[in-house]
Amino acid sequence: MRARVLGSAAGGGFPQWNCACPNCVEVRAGSARLAARTQDSVAVTADGEAWFLLNASPDVLRQIEATPELHPRRPRDTPIRGIVLTNGDLDHTLGLFLLRESQPLIVYATEAVWRGLADGNAIFRTLERFEGQVTWKKLVPGESTELAPGLTLLPFAAPGKLPVHLMRTGKPSPEDNVGLILRDSASGRRLAYATACASAAPVVGRLEGVDVLLFDGTFWSEDELVRLGLGTSRARDMAHAPVGGQSGTMFAFESARIGRKIYTHVNNTNPILAVGSPERREVERAGWEVATDGMEVVA
Amino acid sequence: MRARVLGSAAGGGFPQWNCACPNCVEVRAGSARLAARTQDSVAVTADGEAWFLLNASPDVLRQIEATPELHPRRPRDTPIRGIVLTNGDLDHTLGLFLLRESQPLIVYATEAVWRGLADGNAIFRTLERFEGQVTWKKLVPGESTELAPGLTLLPFAAPGKLPVHLMRTGKPSPEDNVGLILRDSASGRRLAYATACASAAPVVGRLEGVDVLLFDGTFWSEDELVRLGLGTSRARDMAHAPVGGQSGTMFAFESARIGRKIYTHVNNTNPILAVGSPERREVERAGWEVATDGMEVVA
Repeated sequence: MRARVLGSAAGGGFPQWNCACPNCVEVRAGSARLAARTQDSVAVTADGEAWFLLNASPDVLRQIEATPELHPRRPRDTPIRGIVLTNGDLDHTLGLFLLRESQPLIVYATEAVWRGLADGNAIFRTLERFEGQVTWKKLVPGESTELAPGLTLLPFAAPGKLPVHLMRTGKPSPEDNVGLILRDSASGRRLAYATACASAAPVVGRLEGVDVLLFDGTFWSEDELVRLGLGTSRARDMAHAPVGGQSGTMFAFESARIGRKIYTHVNNTNPILAVGSPERREVERAGWEVATDGMEVVA
Repeated sequence: MRARVLGSAAGGGFPQWNCACPNCVEVRAGSARLAARTQDSVAVTADGEAWFLLNASPDVLRQIEATPELHPRRPRDTPIRGIVLTNGDLDHTLGLFLLRESQPLIVYATEAVWRGLADGNAIFRTLERFEGQVTWKKLVPGESTELAPGLTLLPFAAPGKLPVHLMRTGKPSPEDNVGLILRDSASGRRLAYATACASAAPVVGRLEGVDVLLFDGTFWSEDELVRLGLGTSRARDMAHAPVGGQSGTMFAFESARIGRKIYTHVNNTNPILAVGSPERREVERAGWEVATDGMEVVA
C-alpha cells in the first residue's frame, strides 16, 4: 500500500490568505525552514493503479496536477476510483464540486456527513447532472468496506463536531467525524488517518499496532490562536486536541506501538512547521514526523 | 487603474484534472508553447491599495499567494475590499467559501446571482458566523456603483444563462449574467470585463471606446467539445460565443474602437492557447491578445 500526502495543512492552507502571523510572513519571504502546504488530503493505492482520495480539499485541482499518478490516461479519465470523506468540514468536502466535469464519482461517507452535504445545498446538483454522476457508499463506524480488491477501509468514530455551517441547525452525531484504517489484504499492513480528533485518549487503543499513522497536528497548544491574537477559539473548541503538553496527543501516543507516526493537517500558526524550532525538535524526539505536501508513505 | 489577471482559464482550469486532450497532455509535458492557467478571475485597483476581485474562483487561494499586492499587511488583514460576481457559476463563486477565515467580505452581485447563492445552500452559513461577516451590495444592470473613491463599476446585462446547478429549478433572468465596466474617475479610463457572453452582437455597442477589454475566449469553435469527443454541448449551449468564424466574437468586434482587446476565460481545448498555432496567429492578426495568469494590465 502506498500513500501520497496531497496536502498537509489545516483549513485555510499555509500560508493562509488573510494571515500575517510569524509563520505566514516567514514562508512568504521564502524561508528555508518553512514549506508552503495545501489543505489536508491523502491519496492511497494498493496496486498503484486505482487511487482513493481521503477527503476532497479545496486545493484538489492543484494537488492532482502535482501528482502524476493521478493524471488521466485517456481523453476523459481519472485514476481516482473513490473519495472518502471523514467529516463534513468544507476544507474536506468543497473539492467535490471541483471534480464535476462529467466524471462519475464514488463518495464514501457516513450518513450524517452525506446528508449534511447532499441535502440542503442547491450547489450539490452540479454533481447530479446525469444519472450515476455521483454514487454514495455509506460508511458505518466499525464496519469494514472493500474499496478495491486487496484494499479495505475501516472507519471508526473519532471525537469531532458538526461542520461550522451546520452547528446552529444540525444535531450532533457520533458519525459526524471518523478516522480511517486502510488495510492491504495481501500484506496485512495498515495505514491510519485521523486529521480531526478532539481527544486522543478514546482512539489510542484502536490505533495500536498500525504501520503508519497520519494524525491531527493542527495546533501545538490549546490557546495558540488566542495568544497570537488571531481568534478566541481554543483547540478543543475546534475539535483538535493539541500536540504539546501533558494533555497533548504526543503524550497520549507515547507508549503506543505504531510503526511510523506523522502529524498532518498542521495549522499555519503551529510552531512545529518550522524545521529546527524547539517544538519541532520535541515532536521529532518523541518519534513523530511532520508531513509535507507530496510526501510518499509506504505502508 | 491597474488590473491583474489572476486566472485566465475557463471552468476546470488548464490543464483540467480529468482531461487528456492534446492541449492538456502537451502542457503537462512542459511544452514551451503552452502555459498552465487557473480559473477566471481578475483583481483591479485604482490607487494600488484597495483591490477588488472580479469573481471568486475556486483557485482564489493560490491566486492570492501568487500576487504580493493581495497579501495581508497585518496579522488578520486583506487588501481585498470587495468581490464582484458576474454570474452564479461555481467557477466564479466557490472561492467565496475559501475566504471565510473570520474576514468580513463585501460582495457585489445582482439579486438573481445573490439569491441563487445565499438561499438554498446550507454551506453559505459558513459566511454568516458573525454579524457583518458578509455584506451584499446589490448590482442593477445599467446602474453605476462607486467601489472606492475614484473607481466606479457599471454592470450591464450580457447574454448568459443560469448556473448549471440551478437550471432545473431556477427561473432565467437578464440579471443571471452581467459584464462589467470599471472606470477610473481621475483619468476617465475604462476597463471592461465579460467572460461569459452567449453572443457578442448585443454588447459590442456598449463596449465601444473602452481602453481595455477582457472578453470571453472560452471556445474557438461552436463544436469544439463535440469534435474532440469530450462532450455533446456546443459553445452557445454553454453561453459562450466562439472566437473564430463568421459568427465568432473576433469578427463581431472587428470594427469596434477598443484600446486593447484580450481574450480570457480560455477553455483547455481552445487552440488559441498554443503560441504559434494557426488560430493563435489569427486572433493576434485581428489585434487580440490571449491572457495569461499574472498578466498586468494598465488601463
